[in-house]
Amino acid sequence: MIKLSNFPIKTLKSRPVVSDNLSTSLLLQAWFIRQEMAWVYIYTTLGLKVLRKIENIVREEMDNAGANEVLMSSLGSKLHWDQTGRWDVVDVLFKLPASTWKEYALNPTHEEIVTPFAGEFIQSYKDLDFAVYQIQTKFRNEKRAKSGLLRWREFLMKDLYSFHRDEASLDAYYENMKKVYMKVFDRLGIWKDTYITLAWGWDFTDKYSHEFQTLLDIGEDDIYICDECNTSHNEEIVDLENGFECTNCNSKNHRVEKASEVGNIFPLMTKFSDAFWLKYADENWKEKQVIMGCYGIGISRLMWVIAEYYANEKWISWPENLAPADYYIIVMWEENIEKAEEIAKKLELEWKSVILDDRIWKKIGFGQKAWDCELFGIANRIVLSPKTLEQWGYELTKRGEESTIIKL
Amino acid sequence: MIKLSNFPIKTLKSRPVVSDNLSTSLLLQAWFIRQEMAWVYIYTTLGLKVLRKIENIVREEMDNAGANEVLMSSLGSKLHWDQTGRWDVVDVLFKLPASTWKEYALNPTHEEIVTPFAGEFIQSYKDLDFAVYQIQTKFRNEKRAKSGLLRWREFLMKDLYSFHRDEASLDAYYENMKKVYMKVFDRLGIWKDTYITLAWGWDFTDKYSHEFQTLLDIGEDDIYICDECNTSHNEEIVDLENGFECTNCNSKNHRVEKASEVGNIFPLMTKFSDAFWLKYADENWKEKQVIMGCYGIGISRLMWVIAEYYANEKWISWPENLAPADYYIIVMWEENIEKAEEIAKKLELEWKSVILDDRIWKKIGFGQKAWDCELFGIANRIVLSPKTLEQWGYELTKRGEESTIIKL
Repeated sequence: MIKLSNFPIKTLKSRPVVSDNLSTSLLLQAWFIRQEMAWVYIYTTLGLKVLRKIENIVREEMDNAGANEVLMSSLGSKLHWDQTGRWDVVDVLFKLPASTWKEYALNPTHEEIVTPFAGEFIQSYKDLDFAVYQIQTKFRNEKRAKSGLLRWREFLMKDLYSFHRDEASLDAYYENMKKVYMKVFDRLGIWKDTYITLAWGWDFTDKYSHEFQTLLDIGEDDIYICDECNTSHNEEIVDLENGFECTNCNSKNHRVEKASEVGNIFPLMTKFSDAFWLKYADENWKEKQVIMGCYGIGISRLMWVIAEYYANEKWISWPENLAPADYYIIVMWEENIEKAEEIAKKLELEWKSVILDDRIWKKIGFGQKAWDCELFGIANRIVLSPKTLEQWGYELTKRGEESTIIKL
Repeated sequence: MIKLSNFPIKTLKSRPVVSDNLSTSLLLQAWFIRQEMAWVYIYTTLGLKVLRKIENIVREEMDNAGANEVLMSSLGSKLHWDQTGRWDVVDVLFKLPASTWKEYALNPTHEEIVTPFAGEFIQSYKDLDFAVYQIQTKFRNEKRAKSGLLRWREFLMKDLYSFHRDEASLDAYYENMKKVYMKVFDRLGIWKDTYITLAWGWDFTDKYSHEFQTLLDIGEDDIYICDECNTSHNEEIVDLENGFECTNCNSKNHRVEKASEVGNIFPLMTKFSDAFWLKYADENWKEKQVIMGCYGIGISRLMWVIAEYYANEKWISWPENLAPADYYIIVMWEENIEKAEEIAKKLELEWKSVILDDRIWKKIGFGQKAWDCELFGIANRIVLSPKTLEQWGYELTKRGEESTIIKL
């Protein structure tokens, strides 16, 4: 139970205009986040609750898919980044001078860490296939916000890496991951408007990689969706000069939508196993290359995308499973606090989470409390007042419904 | 349920000698951790389980004490570090060149972040007292391991900051925190040998700060414990020239013990509220200084200290509430896997966690499996074999007890 009486939160009366997206403004207004510096945020208690709920849904689905959670380091050895030749190539790589006259990487991604890590383990075909993932803070040395939106220097990400004996096994895993991802986005309430989108495979593969793009007016990407078969393409792979042609059904009929990337999956093939000589002995003791894939989901980015998706002009109507709490209890008189705590404890026994607005002596009025409940995006409001207690009950208001008096 | 069949773990037959402490060697041997570079570690799945269990106990007790969890950023603004004058003073501060011709701090501690954060909130006495805490990765630019032990460049820490109207309120909070900390160390199984130890107050306060020191042969600190009243003193505050005299009872009888610091609490007083002009208006609209305290617990350090504390020459006998799992099920025949999964699921319904050693086709023998169970420090071992099934049951061996056959 979160009690607001000793809780450092002070929602703002008006929405701060800090960027061209509503979500950041509303998250700041509701005091879910504060800014430490440009594109670096602090999560306050309620913001952190939302972030952790998103994180836990992602974790559950990765565990369900049989991946093993690990925690790699944020600091990376320069040797590893030199070995893939990416030390001087990845322009968002933070390079950290250390007091030992060395430099460390502040990892923006973990292929350079996970591949030698897997190399310590993999010897023969018996050690394959497997997948590891982590949920961890990543760092990017961003020069400027490319389209003004959703770029951070520090953010929370889930990155999963799979290791395979052959391409067929990678393919099967990769196809299954598409389903796992769509299940995640379903549980996060954005499935309907999230498109699996073909994108460039970089220098890793001749095949495409896949992005998961959620339709948003403020999205940083243009996606080209085929009118016939709904296949979605990132603009970067569309032949803009000769006009769109669907890679799946060859139709030229399409629509262009603004979207924001919430995840991506990549067939890494042998790009990193080559660099780190990651091989295994097959059944006949023949040396073979390990095939890899990687699979990212931006956890803090998702918080913003979901906020934007569920925002109206006044507040964010969080889906109930992501809101910072299930119930918001407003209590107006000191004498009723005990009763309110009783109700909260009953709800907690049913695994519901509760914010108790017990700011009595601070003389916060009912209007402010009701407003904060809306601003926090809590779907169920309970009011306990002399009036409701006269009727031996409390007032329950569910989002979008009429209030009812529940007998105590 | 963790199934070892698709799990990237390969325990070592012999203990690697990598440092002068047993814990690191045993953690590496059991494949709980891998090393990315000197004093930077990767946690594998089982190591992460232990780390998270420690983390969750700390979190529960901070929540119980009424503190609010937040998540601050790892990147800090140089402006904030300049404002306290610590940019050029804190020698373990990593300074990160950014592509915007600026430098960022990679925060080793968060007073520089939390004080302006609190300043956005605090206006009047109504906004005090409160406390926020976070559990977060910290970075230290260590030159060399001072005593060879338990120093990392990257580690997980709980840091809590309290904000008060006056010194009396800080004192009361501070004294209560001592109890909260000892409850944490009790739950972590090291209470008996952990001493609240007087230490230097730095330039923050004329009073002492307090360290929580756990007795360990490999400890990096010498603590002086009074034989009469058991008050413990860090060597740094002992008058070594004129001989020990207890600060509490003036006795000169004492013993000196090696110990390792697992937590510390500090009366910061107005050191940081001065630097950031953190003031509040009292009942009479008079401007007053906010008084602060800070309270740290080293989460990853605790994992090492507990490992060392519970290590014997062969393995770490984790306390049951911290072991990576409650039960370890060894299954020897392919045909018995289904039965084993059934037992595991029943245990999970009782909220027990299970490692299922189903490495059948990898042809891992019983000896290796039993050895891994010991090495992982799991207290309850279940063996399911044709022999036990003949008796319609499985063999349960609790740590230090005789095996019994449990009927299915």
